[in-house]
Amino acid sequence: MMVKNRILSTFMASALSIGLCHAQIAEDFKPSSLNQPGQEYPMVNSQGYARFKIVAPAADSVRVSLGLGGKGGTKLAKTEDGSWMGTTEGPMDEGFHYYNVKIDGGKFNDPGTLNFYGSVRWESGIEIPAKDQDFYSLKNVPHGNVQQILFPSPSTGTSRRAFVYTPPGYEKGKGKYPVLYLQHGWGEDETAWMNQGRANLIMDNLIAEGKIKPFIIVNTYGMTNEVKFGKIREFKIEPFQTVLINELIPYVDANFRTLANKDKRAMAGLSMGGMETKTITLNNPEVFAYYGLLSGGLYAPADIKDKSKVKLIFLSCGSKERPEGVKKSTEELKAAGFNAVGYVSEGTAHEFQTWRRSLYQLAPLLFK
Amino acid sequence: MMVKNRILSTFMASALSIGLCHAQIAEDFKPSSLNQPGQEYPMVNSQGYARFKIVAPAADSVRVSLGLGGKGGTKLAKTEDGSWMGTTEGPMDEGFHYYNVKIDGGKFNDPGTLNFYGSVRWESGIEIPAKDQDFYSLKNVPHGNVQQILFPSPSTGTSRRAFVYTPPGYEKGKGKYPVLYLQHGWGEDETAWMNQGRANLIMDNLIAEGKIKPFIIVNTYGMTNEVKFGKIREFKIEPFQTVLINELIPYVDANFRTLANKDKRAMAGLSMGGMETKTITLNNPEVFAYYGLLSGGLYAPADIKDKSKVKLIFLSCGSKERPEGVKKSTEELKAAGFNAVGYVSEGTAHEFQTWRRSLYQLAPLLFK
Repeated sequence: MMVKNRILSTFMASALSIGLCHAQIAEDFKPSSLNQPGQEYPMVNSQGYARFKIVAPAADSVRVSLGLGGKGGTKLAKTEDGSWMGTTEGPMDEGFHYYNVKIDGGKFNDPGTLNFYGSVRWESGIEIPAKDQDFYSLKNVPHGNVQQILFPSPSTGTSRRAFVYTPPGYEKGKGKYPVLYLQHGWGEDETAWMNQGRANLIMDNLIAEGKIKPFIIVNTYGMTNEVKFGKIREFKIEPFQTVLINELIPYVDANFRTLANKDKRAMAGLSMGGMETKTITLNNPEVFAYYGLLSGGLYAPADIKDKSKVKLIFLSCGSKERPEGVKKSTEELKAAGFNAVGYVSEGTAHEFQTWRRSLYQLAPLLFK
Repeated sequence: MMVKNRILSTFMASALSIGLCHAQIAEDFKPSSLNQPGQEYPMVNSQGYARFKIVAPAADSVRVSLGLGGKGGTKLAKTEDGSWMGTTEGPMDEGFHYYNVKIDGGKFNDPGTLNFYGSVRWESGIEIPAKDQDFYSLKNVPHGNVQQILFPSPSTGTSRRAFVYTPPGYEKGKGKYPVLYLQHGWGEDETAWMNQGRANLIMDNLIAEGKIKPFIIVNTYGMTNEVKFGKIREFKIEPFQTVLINELIPYVDANFRTLANKDKRAMAGLSMGGMETKTITLNNPEVFAYYGLLSGGLYAPADIKDKSKVKLIFLSCGSKERPEGVKKSTEELKAAGFNAVGYVSEGTAHEFQTWRRSLYQLAPLLFK
């Protein structure tokens, strides 16, 4: 009896756990919105689980770098048709995630998805639908353009690339616009804010709803990949500062209809781009009046020599980062008389959903 | 003696063949210009050989789809450090090539290179330096911009993407410009002409040398991937024709400074984009006056109802395609009184080097 009971209870417990497991994972998986045309996998469900399928019949092991933190990602299992499949152990945070696929010891991309530049390589990307995804969705509203420009850079001896968002109506209009210089993070480049960040759609939607006055956004490469991650303190700001201040800004002011003065110019950056923003804004108080650090460091009141020159300090991060720092710094800056705004993105980490939301919060505060 | 001689001669023959082989492949390999930042492989040498290196220590087989025609690409061999290496059996044609990597039965991309959309997937790309590469090189000349626009498309119920090249000086100028609508081939999309084709750099260089008067180029998605390759005859032109004629052209004319009339509007396309160009120009004689088919079909004099409406017919292909057709059709069109120009790209096949050169030949003939 006792043995039988034990078996039964073991059986029931495991049936229960299987049952729970099945009840937990909703079988409503759909292709991720970032898949390549016609590709079914990877898929995401309504709870934020991601499911992967990789075809490599003769492989010995396939592992996706995404999954629960610290567990080395999701190990895929071979199926009868020779493909490898697996589902994340739990729901993922909302928004965009980079990932890659380890196949027999090599690092590759998932052939199912579009690629996004991060970690100093073009990575696979997946989008977990977010409750607030409306603000960065492609809608039937007037759209601004994203222009690739090649600007001369004598200091680096080449033409350098930047992307310029011009708001709807810019092409046919006559007015002049303020400019936000917006930087990517370590391992990324000038493509990040428009591709992963959807900055152009965030702006289109804010403008269509009348929540902001239109402005221009400029993204260029922050030269951050020349330093190894973990040795960020060895990064020298001077080469990038020269490109930005002496080359890019004069080019943009000469070739676009900008309001070319400090009070109509902002700089913000995410992660290592925040570190760049902090250094460059403090070094150049006559160039920018609006400063934004997104998961990218903090300002202390003592950092700023002339308070009258700063019109806004915006600090943000995800709630899964260190929100106390953002909150404390914001309070200190306010107490010292600065126009400081802190923002914490609920339920997100050091990832693009935090930065999309941060841009959405920052944009209406600029150029007042 | 006889045996000895035979061994000696065998030895000598094989030494000779090894010697020849080493003499043939110049060991001056350099990273391909399309590699991801910091990546050494793939490499190309001065003769056009390509050398690949893929890290996948536990793989059973690794094969690159590039190599000599009909031989299934280049099989890589495992090296001592666990990576797989191989060199193409012969020199590749000059210019850009798509490829992918078969690893243990699955199709992936080379993590060393940038990706380019072709064959209905983002593929790896490699660039074999060409003797005439100067005309599409990034030089220290004024650069036009490449704008991503999102235009409303009621017929497809969404906002569609196009890329618009505006020539140097457009932003600050007041003049109006002619427009070339330039289409990609099957399996590609609206990114092809600027990425693989380097159309913006070809234009910048032609303008800087005073060889052409500036004009605008527009690329959008030709909806060609909805049909399987080999079933191209089943392709229906109407949906794309509606997007182009009723939606994109009016949007471009409303939002850019264009010369909005037939005599200042051209359409050209490569491969399946040529087939689209032929059908759409013949269906819409009031919309375009300049027609270009690049490796993409031919016009016969009888195709065109009103000769007076056509200002130029440009036909081209690579010498490794069917140049006789291009030559014959051009002669027939000329004999019938058309302003027809034929061009054959020497030593190239159905690939982007043919089409870069074709654009370089076509551009000075437009909008005279």
